[in-house]
Amino acid sequence: MAQQQSKTLNGVDVDGLLQSINVIQKEPSVAKFNFRAKNEWVSGSESRTTINDFYGAGKTHVRSKPFVFTKDEPPVLLGKDHGANPVEYALTALAGCVTTTLIFHAAAKGVKINKVESTLEGDIDIRGLLNLDDSVKVGYESIQMNFKIDSDASEETLHELIELGKKHSPVANTITNATPVNITLSKT
Amino acid sequence: MAQQQSKTLNGVDVDGLLQSINVIQKEPSVAKFNFRAKNEWVSGSESRTTINDFYGAGKTHVRSKPFVFTKDEPPVLLGKDHGANPVEYALTALAGCVTTTLIFHAAAKGVKINKVESTLEGDIDIRGLLNLDDSVKVGYESIQMNFKIDSDASEETLHELIELGKKHSPVANTITNATPVNITLSKT
Repeated sequence: MAQQQSKTLNGVDVDGLLQSINVIQKEPSVAKFNFRAKNEWVSGSESRTTINDFYGAGKTHVRSKPFVFTKDEPPVLLGKDHGANPVEYALTALAGCVTTTLIFHAAAKGVKINKVESTLEGDIDIRGLLNLDDSVKVGYESIQMNFKIDSDASEETLHELIELGKKHSPVANTITNATPVNITLSKT
Repeated sequence: MAQQQSKTLNGVDVDGLLQSINVIQKEPSVAKFNFRAKNEWVSGSESRTTINDFYGAGKTHVRSKPFVFTKDEPPVLLGKDHGANPVEYALTALAGCVTTTLIFHAAAKGVKINKVESTLEGDIDIRGLLNLDDSVKVGYESIQMNFKIDSDASEETLHELIELGKKHSPVANTITNATPVNITLSKT
């Protein structure tokens, strides 16, 4: 058994996935995760976020090496373009989450996927950011995501997978539902 | 005039900021931006997002070099940890956006900030992702962000800046309001 390779589909360890589901169904607290980030302002629009540890499946996990992300604004938004800007990071988060969710659900259903590409876009009117007009929406008006999927599955199946990808994606749900953000200040 | 350095505070070009506000007040269409991302699935939970161009202030801007981000999941979520995961990218986006918004508003108000650090965290129950329980929230339950700010400004001013940072941050608003995400499938 130790030598036996587990069944994978779309690069997903399907046996591991079914085993995880089994464990969670017996003990739902295993499904509780807490994700964390630390951010440090550099100058102007530039800041740096470090992702290192998280809690999940009953314990804290620390990465072998933290992931570090520089955010900045392009010159037209008064930055130095040292990194993608935060609203572009939000699209990055959404893109990855819907894609992974779709791939996991395809694997669970036995649907082989060969290739997935997507493009995302969203409009923002920066009068909201600049506090120039209270009637202007501050965040994305809406976000459009378009998939191109290469698979032998029927178009109906692919549409169903896209629906599952959206319905069960944590980032998509964080965006499409009103998710509370609580901000506090500690004394230094 | 060409030799004169413009006034900066907190690394923000305050003259440039006031000039932008002036231009937008005369011609609000200048404030319209469209941000874009392309994503390519790699395998399993791994995908790669490319950020290259965006539209704003009346034209398309292309970066000298695209920003490329790898997303993956840690082993406990059946990935290979080749990158931070999408919900961690979402915290990264939020961290940068509230920080930059706060810094810009501080600069506009003439408040000097020496240092800003923040920690973020949010709970996710992955039974939503795995489609195991319809009553479980799929996205973040809520997100907690805690700031430590070093500044000579009063605590009242710092609280006010944090409020402005949250109220006028495009990413915070994308999350705290229900933002529509439309997903379509193109035939390959």
